[in-house]
Amino acid sequence: MSAATTSTRPGGRSARVRAAVHRAVEEFLADNPAEGLTLPLIATRAGVHPTTLYRRWGSVADLMADVASSRFSGDIVVPDTGSLREDLRRWASDVATDLADPDTLAVIRASIGSSAEGGCACTADRHDQLTAMLDRERARGGAAPETPHAADMLLGPLYYRAIFTDEPADPGWTGQLVDTLLK
Amino acid sequence: MSAATTSTRPGGRSARVRAAVHRAVEEFLADNPAEGLTLPLIATRAGVHPTTLYRRWGSVADLMADVASSRFSGDIVVPDTGSLREDLRRWASDVATDLADPDTLAVIRASIGSSAEGGCACTADRHDQLTAMLDRERARGGAAPETPHAADMLLGPLYYRAIFTDEPADPGWTGQLVDTLLK
Repeated sequence: MSAATTSTRPGGRSARVRAAVHRAVEEFLADNPAEGLTLPLIATRAGVHPTTLYRRWGSVADLMADVASSRFSGDIVVPDTGSLREDLRRWASDVATDLADPDTLAVIRASIGSSAEGGCACTADRHDQLTAMLDRERARGGAAPETPHAADMLLGPLYYRAIFTDEPADPGWTGQLVDTLLK
Repeated sequence: MSAATTSTRPGGRSARVRAAVHRAVEEFLADNPAEGLTLPLIATRAGVHPTTLYRRWGSVADLMADVASSRFSGDIVVPDTGSLREDLRRWASDVATDLADPDTLAVIRASIGSSAEGGCACTADRHDQLTAMLDRERARGGAAPETPHAADMLLGPLYYRAIFTDEPADPGWTGQLVDTLLK
């Protein structure tokens, strides 16, 4: 399998390789801590030549960023109940449920662990969803906090509990986070 | 170097090996993302036989938990100004300063990335410090929030910003976190 052959193949095969590699990463993480994840191991599991992975993603960090942004894009629907408080309550509860899934956490941990600095593709979509709800409230004439403050008060505790503690994140607790933000 | 020889050596040499290995981990992380960290690489850098590391720590996860708990123990002094608000403001600012250090973040990232599940040794000391300030306020007759809520409102945003965003954490912002918690 030469570089020229695969790099000029369009669409279908490329998408299939990406799907196989993403699935291999998620399966690997379900069985192992992130520390053992290497491109050759993922290549073997995905049935793809290691060169393909190195050429396409370059590093575990780049591959994990791709897996994370794909995994967390459009996975949670932004609620639209007509009430900002109710929207945020439902959304925060959905985020908490997602974060309680060990497979979700494994992708987040691996993505954090492999990135050398700044940011994580895990939460870009969460910020967009939050902004959408806050903007909608303002559009119908209501008052709404700015996104960075809302992220501090909602995403901060949600991700902190999931990653650093063993404390549960039940709907009663996520509802209180929303009430603290909006009071 | 046989297992029997080193495992029965007490005190001095054992502490020196531990210090050398911890230093090697921190130097490695300053140069590389966590993904490349393996026990053999750390052994080489520390000038220690790999077997010693496998016997003592067993895995990268266990080694990183040891490095993290050592790194974050007693590194921040709990302020005692006589005012809970002022104590929390100084402490939150100190935590933010610590989290702005790339070497600190590298240890946290590696510790998260290598742990398969639940918790992280990075923040145990932070919880104890927070509890100490809140308990002291109650002991002198004041009202103070419970530690889990205070952790949600302070450690949540502090660690979330450091790990997931590129947003700065200046003393004005950390002061607002304290004011939101105590209002």
